[in-house]
Amino acid sequence: MKRICLKVSYDGTNYHGWQRQDNTSDTIEEVLNKALSETLGEPIEVIGASRTDAGVHALGNIAVFDTNARIPGEKVSFAVNKHLPEDIVVVESMEVEQSFHPRKCDSIKTYDYRISTGRFVNPTKRLYTYHSHNSFDIERMRAGAGYLIGTHDFKSFCQTGAQVKDTVRTIYTLEVFADGDEIIIRVSGNGFLYNMVRIIAGTLMDIGMGRREPEDVKEMLAALDRNAAGPTAPACGLTLVSYEFL
Amino acid sequence: MKRICLKVSYDGTNYHGWQRQDNTSDTIEEVLNKALSETLGEPIEVIGASRTDAGVHALGNIAVFDTNARIPGEKVSFAVNKHLPEDIVVVESMEVEQSFHPRKCDSIKTYDYRISTGRFVNPTKRLYTYHSHNSFDIERMRAGAGYLIGTHDFKSFCQTGAQVKDTVRTIYTLEVFADGDEIIIRVSGNGFLYNMVRIIAGTLMDIGMGRREPEDVKEMLAALDRNAAGPTAPACGLTLVSYEFL
Repeated sequence: MKRICLKVSYDGTNYHGWQRQDNTSDTIEEVLNKALSETLGEPIEVIGASRTDAGVHALGNIAVFDTNARIPGEKVSFAVNKHLPEDIVVVESMEVEQSFHPRKCDSIKTYDYRISTGRFVNPTKRLYTYHSHNSFDIERMRAGAGYLIGTHDFKSFCQTGAQVKDTVRTIYTLEVFADGDEIIIRVSGNGFLYNMVRIIAGTLMDIGMGRREPEDVKEMLAALDRNAAGPTAPACGLTLVSYEFL
Repeated sequence: MKRICLKVSYDGTNYHGWQRQDNTSDTIEEVLNKALSETLGEPIEVIGASRTDAGVHALGNIAVFDTNARIPGEKVSFAVNKHLPEDIVVVESMEVEQSFHPRKCDSIKTYDYRISTGRFVNPTKRLYTYHSHNSFDIERMRAGAGYLIGTHDFKSFCQTGAQVKDTVRTIYTLEVFADGDEIIIRVSGNGFLYNMVRIIAGTLMDIGMGRREPEDVKEMLAALDRNAAGPTAPACGLTLVSYEFL
């Protein structure tokens, strides 16, 4: 028995998110389980690092599973990709320690939130950006972002109803920059609460268009109340870029 | 009666190309005609500048049509976008001279061909790039491209069966450059024969992977025979970037 770790990229457009659900088979987790089971000839169940929401994309989500198959860890990616649809790709695979659990290891997670600000949406980018007709002041967004960097109780930036006790997280970096007519919010941290990145994006957009002030973020954090922060930005703009295990 | 000019962006993935066909309604032209007719309350038929192939994308294709409607030219884009699916967007509209015909005016057309060269395809780019497992020598591709720049008879770079008498065209610029793990071939010219950009891309890829020599391009041009040039690269990598009327 050995444990294999996969790095998984996907276009989340056509899926109901990562996590297996009773009422649909269109989840990344279930499609991956089925493809791995077909590839290895035994029932496989993966453990995912990040349970991304419906419509969210990933360049490097992480999943592990155990197998008795004799295939070398690094060959799994090539083999399983033959059984996967073209919008899910295993970009790397390797054998890891039996004790490795992607949600129980310290890691740095990086997400990008992309806002398209052209006069009209670019149809070839519509699935991977959130298009807004508003104009944004990037300097204001950066000033607001500055208050979020560091270790804070992010309860105000967590979707209500999420079953989590400890809402303290650390954001290592939070950058806002332009890329052509897109604005990218890039955030790295030790972990993110349910919808946290999308609420950060929605809040920074509010600040960028003048609805809120950058320094309001201090009060938002202090309130420990979801209603204090800005709206949850749409899923399509969000991409899980990478996991780095420490 | 006035003539309106549209700049049209589209994701060509789900369409059988630009040009109206008897056996399908899934063409850009037909969807555009239908949306414009609904918007303006009279039957509209557009004249397109470039009849892009199935699967080819556009950021700025051009179409004109005549109408008796009173709507100001610049308002048409906003109005018609409400009747269009999200993968076709009119990004600009304006009234033009009644004599303006987009295929009969001198213009500079620019196309990008994108090759993705990562170890695996990035699922969020799969619809807009051609993924290749080969590695490419960009310097060799540039050297080959150099022979194509200028005014030549491009008969060898035209799909056989195309009904065109004059196969002389001028390429103003033909650049090959890296953008992350993508290689972009960007070509501007006064006009392109049927499949010409895709055959140029296929030929430069052959040169980049060592199957042909850069200087072979001279003989390819001289042969005036489609069989002398390289393969036709897949449609998904191709985007019509812009039209500039002179």
